[in-house]
Amino acid sequence: MDLETLTLGQYNFIQNAFSFGLAVMGAATLFFWFMRSEVAPAYRMAITITGLVTAIAAYHYLQIMLSWQGAFQVSHGAIETTGAQFNQAYRYVDWLLTVPLLLIELILVMKLARGETISKSIWLGGAAALMIALGYPGEIAETGGTRFTFWILSMIPFIYIVYQLVVGLKDSIRKQPENVRGLINGAAYLVVISWLFYPIVFLFPLVGLTGGAAITAVEVGYTIADIMAKAVFGILILVIAMRKSEHEQVKA
Amino acid sequence: MDLETLTLGQYNFIQNAFSFGLAVMGAATLFFWFMRSEVAPAYRMAITITGLVTAIAAYHYLQIMLSWQGAFQVSHGAIETTGAQFNQAYRYVDWLLTVPLLLIELILVMKLARGETISKSIWLGGAAALMIALGYPGEIAETGGTRFTFWILSMIPFIYIVYQLVVGLKDSIRKQPENVRGLINGAAYLVVISWLFYPIVFLFPLVGLTGGAAITAVEVGYTIADIMAKAVFGILILVIAMRKSEHEQVKA
Repeated sequence: MDLETLTLGQYNFIQNAFSFGLAVMGAATLFFWFMRSEVAPAYRMAITITGLVTAIAAYHYLQIMLSWQGAFQVSHGAIETTGAQFNQAYRYVDWLLTVPLLLIELILVMKLARGETISKSIWLGGAAALMIALGYPGEIAETGGTRFTFWILSMIPFIYIVYQLVVGLKDSIRKQPENVRGLINGAAYLVVISWLFYPIVFLFPLVGLTGGAAITAVEVGYTIADIMAKAVFGILILVIAMRKSEHEQVKA
Repeated sequence: MDLETLTLGQYNFIQNAFSFGLAVMGAATLFFWFMRSEVAPAYRMAITITGLVTAIAAYHYLQIMLSWQGAFQVSHGAIETTGAQFNQAYRYVDWLLTVPLLLIELILVMKLARGETISKSIWLGGAAALMIALGYPGEIAETGGTRFTFWILSMIPFIYIVYQLVVGLKDSIRKQPENVRGLINGAAYLVVISWLFYPIVFLFPLVGLTGGAAITAVEVGYTIADIMAKAVFGILILVIAMRKSEHEQVKA
C-alpha cells in the first residue's frame, strides 16, 4: 500500500472507522453474552459463539488501530509516514478464526440432527478456513501474478460455501419452524452478500487502485463488511434463537 | 479549533470534565447491568442496551481524554500545544452508535407490539444514524459554507425525530400503564431538550466563537449533554422498567 499518498483527512477517517469497528464489536460481544441467558439452553452454544466472533474481531480491530496509528505521525496538521509497517495481515488472522465460527453459529442455531451438525460444521468451517489460508499468500505476494493465482484458489472454497448456503441448506431450512424460516434465509444471504466485498477488494491492487482514496475505500469497506457479517449477522442469529426458544416453550 | 488560545485553567477544566464523563459513563454502565436482573425478562434487552450506550460512551470518553492529553504539554505551570491533533471526531463515532441505540431503549421499554417495535426502531434509529452521518462532514469541513450546508441537512432527520418523540409516540404512550406514563413522557422530553445543545454548539465556529472560552463551553457542554442523554436518561429507562415489572407482577 502506498501509505504516503494518504491525506490527513483520509488518515483520520480510517482511524475513526477502526475505532468504530472496535466499539461496535466490543458492544456487540457484551450484548450477545448478556442476552445468552434469555434463550433456551439448546441455543446457548450458538449465542456464546456469536459473542466469541465479535470478541475476536474487537481484539483484532484494536491491533489494527494501534498498527495504523504507529505507521503515521501527525504534527501541526501535517501527516507523514513513520516507516513502521501497517500490518494488514491481522485481518487474515481474524478471519481464519471468525469466518469458520460464524458459519458454525448458523448451523448451531438451526438445531439439526447431531450428525448433520457435526458434518456441516466440519465441511463449511473447514472450507472457510481453507479460503482464508489461501487468500493470505496472495495478500502478501510481491507480484500481481501470485496475487491473482491465490485469488483463484481461494475462490474455490468460497464458491463451495456460497453454494452450500444458498442451495445445500435449503432442505434443512424448510424443516425450521415457520416463524424463523425467513430470518434464517436472511442470515444466509447476509453472509453471501457481505462476503462479496472481500474478493472484489482483493483485486483492487491488480487494477491499479492503490492511492489514498483506494486505501480509504478498502479499509472502510472491510470494516463495514465485517460489521455486517459479524455484528448484524449475530443479531439475526440471536433473534432466531429467541423466537425458536419462544416457539418451543409454547409447544411444550 | 484554536487550541493555542487555551489557558492552563481551561485545559485543566476540560480534562477534568472528560475524566468526569468517563467516570459517570463507566459507573452508569455497571449500575444498569447490575440492576438488569431486577426487572422482568421482557425489559432485560432494554436495560442491556441502556448499559451498552453508556459503555460505548465510556470508551469514547477515554479516547477523547487521551487525545486531549496528547495535544498539550504542561510543564512548570506553562501550557503549550504539542502539535498532535485533538480528534474531536470520536464524538461522532460515539453518537453514530449510541444515538440510535438510546432511541431503541425507549421503544423497547414501552413493550409495543412486535411489528411496531421493529418499524419504530428502524425509522427512529435510521434517522438518528443519518443525522450523525450528515453532521460529520460539516464538523471536519474547511469552510463555513460547507459546515452550514451539512448543519441544514442534519437538521432534517433531527426535526423528524423530535416530531416522532413529541407527537408520533403520543398514542403509544397513552396505552402505557398509568404509573409510568409521566416518566416515559419525561424520558422523551429529556432526549429532545438535551439534544438541543448539539446543533447550537455546531454553529459556534460560524459566528466566530472559537477561542479558549468557546472551546471550554463546547467541550464541557457536550459532556453535560451526553451525561443527560445517556446516563440520566438511562436511569429513567431503568425506573420505567422496574415499575412496569412490578405492575405486571401485581396483575398476574
